[in-house]
Amino acid sequence: MFEHYYAAIMAGGEGSRLWPLSRKSRPKQLVKLGSDQSLFQGAVDRLKSVIPADRIFVVTVAGLAESLQEQSPEIPRENYLLEPMPRGTASVVGFAALALHHRDPQAVMAIVTADHLIQNETYFHELLKQAYELAEDGYLVTLGIRPTFAATGYGYIQRGKPLDLHGFRAFEVQKFKEKPDEETARGFLVNGDHDWNSGMFVWKVDRIWKEFQQFMPELAAKLTEISNAWSTPARDDTLKAVWPTIKPQTIDYGIMEQADRVVVIPAVDLGWNDVGSWESMFEVFTPASDGNIVLDAEYLGIETGNSLIVSDRTNRLIVTLGVDDLIVVDTPDAVLVCSRKSAQKVREVVRLLKQKDGSSRYL
Amino acid sequence: MFEHYYAAIMAGGEGSRLWPLSRKSRPKQLVKLGSDQSLFQGAVDRLKSVIPADRIFVVTVAGLAESLQEQSPEIPRENYLLEPMPRGTASVVGFAALALHHRDPQAVMAIVTADHLIQNETYFHELLKQAYELAEDGYLVTLGIRPTFAATGYGYIQRGKPLDLHGFRAFEVQKFKEKPDEETARGFLVNGDHDWNSGMFVWKVDRIWKEFQQFMPELAAKLTEISNAWSTPARDDTLKAVWPTIKPQTIDYGIMEQADRVVVIPAVDLGWNDVGSWESMFEVFTPASDGNIVLDAEYLGIETGNSLIVSDRTNRLIVTLGVDDLIVVDTPDAVLVCSRKSAQKVREVVRLLKQKDGSSRYL
Repeated sequence: MFEHYYAAIMAGGEGSRLWPLSRKSRPKQLVKLGSDQSLFQGAVDRLKSVIPADRIFVVTVAGLAESLQEQSPEIPRENYLLEPMPRGTASVVGFAALALHHRDPQAVMAIVTADHLIQNETYFHELLKQAYELAEDGYLVTLGIRPTFAATGYGYIQRGKPLDLHGFRAFEVQKFKEKPDEETARGFLVNGDHDWNSGMFVWKVDRIWKEFQQFMPELAAKLTEISNAWSTPARDDTLKAVWPTIKPQTIDYGIMEQADRVVVIPAVDLGWNDVGSWESMFEVFTPASDGNIVLDAEYLGIETGNSLIVSDRTNRLIVTLGVDDLIVVDTPDAVLVCSRKSAQKVREVVRLLKQKDGSSRYL
Repeated sequence: MFEHYYAAIMAGGEGSRLWPLSRKSRPKQLVKLGSDQSLFQGAVDRLKSVIPADRIFVVTVAGLAESLQEQSPEIPRENYLLEPMPRGTASVVGFAALALHHRDPQAVMAIVTADHLIQNETYFHELLKQAYELAEDGYLVTLGIRPTFAATGYGYIQRGKPLDLHGFRAFEVQKFKEKPDEETARGFLVNGDHDWNSGMFVWKVDRIWKEFQQFMPELAAKLTEISNAWSTPARDDTLKAVWPTIKPQTIDYGIMEQADRVVVIPAVDLGWNDVGSWESMFEVFTPASDGNIVLDAEYLGIETGNSLIVSDRTNRLIVTLGVDDLIVVDTPDAVLVCSRKSAQKVREVVRLLKQKDGSSRYL
């Protein structure tokens, strides 16, 4: 069955939370942060150990295709699926599913994120193989992440009964849960039966196709229209005509929360991080003895502690003096100075720049 | 007597306290900070209202001459007196005095700083004229600044008996005092008989020349050697040979503290500021309602208060988020982020950069 394993990487995200390093034309997944490899390249490399590059698909928007292809030239150009515009994860999954169905009706597809970090790669390979096996059994499989703190920024998955089909641990999904408040999140951790929703799924293409038809019939009809034109000269025109009429929806809400035979494989110590804000760098990287993290920067720190210093390899000197708990991000045309407690508000900067005359060049 | 009035600007200072805006090749006096005019240009303009440009001299080091001339082309090139290397204010005064003595033996010279701010220019003109008048009477005249806070970073001058020679207030100098500790400084303010030493002086050239001979005979001998060669082809060679043998000394310590007939004219509301650190910008400029001062910067501040944002007109965007009491200075090749309480330690940055391999380009 191995020859029917495929993967699709969702790589169309905008990711304004790592501004000014991430930009519209270079979102989080393309950024190389303290590494020679972008998060997207990491995602490709992780998959390549399990399936060959020509069975890896990338769903993204036209504006990013060239940069993505440059970073991972091993993926064939025809495997890039270009959304005319973002329309939510349900349409991304549907788009990948229809393309894969044309390629191989027996396809088993993993759908993974392009902008998360996974540090324990060997373990990821193991989990992915387990997920493919369960998907072959006809399950909708999701990878859960064992929570390490009471996060309010992630969705959760509540476990139900354990399954022991292939000699590894998986659980029926009891319930998908929206981002909780802090007290609820603490309750989840105390109970121990909730995992973070990683946004990574594995299933047979024909199974997910049926779910679209059952739970999202409107979207399924539009996808069918595109599918019918897929092997004809009208493919692009149809895509361009139909796509804007799709209502943005998530796959979680549209299908996962409603379907049967959904299982979760909980991942422990995967070294997973959504790199969702500058603050997350303090989870991803180990600070020096003074608590500071310096990424790609020429830096001189005096009386500075617990701070993050990031450079877009500008070759400029960054000096901090008498500061604590600060984030400094230097890029060729913009510099951000932000307290750690405000790291979550960086999106607000992007929102304000969108409104400000003459500031679009900083987006 | 007006035709014998001259001025010499001391413009050789290094000024590392406004790093990274001020550099070795562009010290504080050359920087244009929130203005079209540098502090040096300001000093020249202030003098030009009282005496013509061809009677203004500039004492500086070779490395700065070109930039200074560019900023104030109205001063004749031959009025630039180039020290082979810095040797303290006593030698600067002596150098200016000997050159002026060759130009006009009856010269009355003002010696002023190039890197201080004076906002009340009309009042300065008045004080300068008063000082010239007293100098013509044979006094060594110094301009004092009425203290506005218990500064520990300035020298002080204690007043003695009042003089009412020309219808304005001046005082015999009781004593020059070194930089005091804070308690002593508070005592000075309470007593009301101490002024800050502005470093600006006025005297007849032949009088100060006699003082050199009496109180600094070694320096006087070296200056005489240079003076003897002044109108000969050996001028430059003599200067280069003699200058390095001069011991660095200040005019305050060398002469002012010992001479007789020293008077101080106290200046009130001169708008004087030594621009001695980034913190001083909060005295020089009026902050906006959020307490922030933004100089020459493209800036977006969110939840930011009581901070100073300075750009070397880099055309880069500076964004601050969730910070207070912070100083951010952006230049093409270096950015400083500094807490206001550490503003006095910026010199430490320069000291460390001097020691650090490959960092000389930032000096």
